[in-house]
Amino acid sequence: MTTLVFGHKSPDTDSTGSPIIWAWYLNRIKGVEAKPVLLGEPNTEAAFVLERWNLDKPEIVTEVPADTPVVIVDTNNPAELPRGINDCDITGIIDHHKLVGGLETRGPIEIRIEPLACTATIMWKMIGDDIAQMPTEIKGAMLSCILSDTLEFRSPTTTQEDTAIAWDLAKDLGVDIPAYAAEMFAAKSDVSAFSEAELLRMDSKEYEVGGKQLRISVLETTAPHQILDRKEALIAAMPGVAAEDGADQVLLFVIDILNEEATLLVPDDLVKRIAEASFGVTVDGDTVVLPGVMSRKKQIIPNLKV
Amino acid sequence: MTTLVFGHKSPDTDSTGSPIIWAWYLNRIKGVEAKPVLLGEPNTEAAFVLERWNLDKPEIVTEVPADTPVVIVDTNNPAELPRGINDCDITGIIDHHKLVGGLETRGPIEIRIEPLACTATIMWKMIGDDIAQMPTEIKGAMLSCILSDTLEFRSPTTTQEDTAIAWDLAKDLGVDIPAYAAEMFAAKSDVSAFSEAELLRMDSKEYEVGGKQLRISVLETTAPHQILDRKEALIAAMPGVAAEDGADQVLLFVIDILNEEATLLVPDDLVKRIAEASFGVTVDGDTVVLPGVMSRKKQIIPNLKV
Repeated sequence: MTTLVFGHKSPDTDSTGSPIIWAWYLNRIKGVEAKPVLLGEPNTEAAFVLERWNLDKPEIVTEVPADTPVVIVDTNNPAELPRGINDCDITGIIDHHKLVGGLETRGPIEIRIEPLACTATIMWKMIGDDIAQMPTEIKGAMLSCILSDTLEFRSPTTTQEDTAIAWDLAKDLGVDIPAYAAEMFAAKSDVSAFSEAELLRMDSKEYEVGGKQLRISVLETTAPHQILDRKEALIAAMPGVAAEDGADQVLLFVIDILNEEATLLVPDDLVKRIAEASFGVTVDGDTVVLPGVMSRKKQIIPNLKV
Repeated sequence: MTTLVFGHKSPDTDSTGSPIIWAWYLNRIKGVEAKPVLLGEPNTEAAFVLERWNLDKPEIVTEVPADTPVVIVDTNNPAELPRGINDCDITGIIDHHKLVGGLETRGPIEIRIEPLACTATIMWKMIGDDIAQMPTEIKGAMLSCILSDTLEFRSPTTTQEDTAIAWDLAKDLGVDIPAYAAEMFAAKSDVSAFSEAELLRMDSKEYEVGGKQLRISVLETTAPHQILDRKEALIAAMPGVAAEDGADQVLLFVIDILNEEATLLVPDDLVKRIAEASFGVTVDGDTVVLPGVMSRKKQIIPNLKV
């Protein structure tokens, strides 16, 4: 039975590229028949990466039949995976997020979670000397994942290992990192085709904070005005999205990659209170700028208070 | 704050030795202040190993205060750990059991689970070249963990990596594996000091099978008759142990290390039914021999049916 390799729902570059990398490794190096799949349409940056490196877009699946052998990458959170994920035969987990608990395996399997910026970086370490056999397009996916997750080394999640491996890959591939990262971020920043509800859900995770169920959304962009120009419509769409998703509110952080700051939309008193309690700012109006804030994992989630 | 490193309750050799190995690594190589502790009295084999290698017996703790930094080894099962384990600051998990779900971490941490026979084998791989700096007594603990968990390479959980690393360590230490393993197993086999209830709980894990809560106990021994001579008393103690521990029944497998077979005690019709359905045997009397069965993880648990 073919092993399916996938990342989280609403796949970004790491959740699109890492399954491709690992399925290559399983097929070519480990002799395990494997296929990368996506749990949704890749975001615009991931779609650009696939095209740039001539990679086939993996099939999109929404359900995975019971007993299917699967390798889960870039998440360990059942809420970000197909329903009934524990009925699959989970044969591997590779991730760089905190353990949330909930996944169960049938026997002892290989699980590798490390506090690095990117899943692909962990894979690089696991693949070891077999990297030499990796074709250009898989190396290209690997480099793209690291540049995406580190925001070209600007994110505070970036480690020396992520940086060193990315430069190594770039040298090998003859890629000019600043120029290529700019192309990737431009692709990610082009969100004109999306509705407000789609933007609010594009890169979003649910967290409970002080009894409130919050949808914490980030939009990383080199063109923040493209999003902030739509702030009234985005704020108007929040109650509907929150209600549909069973959340109390949506927190949308527009991450300005180049200026290394976030702008949080402030639709109501709850979000105003959260912003002031969490980030030590005074809110006046329907947005607030948070200097230096770039990482949901490292700077937003750990500080959230209601 | 000192990081506490510990394995599971009712510590065997791996859950006694691996915390000592990892605390050494954190202190000496990683510069992290760490201390091994035990969640109970070590078994007779583990006590022998501590004495043989002149290792201090780690302090026994039953509770770990909230917010204590901890590294969990040789288990990922909250039921085998102190109550409130998720209120600790879990900073690492190294294990070789199936993921049962339930542990949660505060942020992304290093988690390494591999389908090898022994936690110490995974540590050997993680420590890498720094093994060269490891003192004799820590290498002795490492070798002992592998010989214990593999039953001197007889258990079907044994992998090539476990075997190769053990022979490497033995050569380095000048240890004669068959002679040393025989001493370890003799220590484990001397259970004369224990009550029947203690024997039933000594190496025991709870599993639900077909709606029944079962306490699956194994006693690995080179002197099975020492245990089987007490079978009436052991069977008489089962209902009390099961009731106290909220289980429906105790399954006691006496593992004969040298003859590579298990003898299951059959106190009642439920266990008779389980034995016949799970292992394809016909039960006649109050024991049944299961040829080749040595591993709870690999041969008992995956086959259990009610």
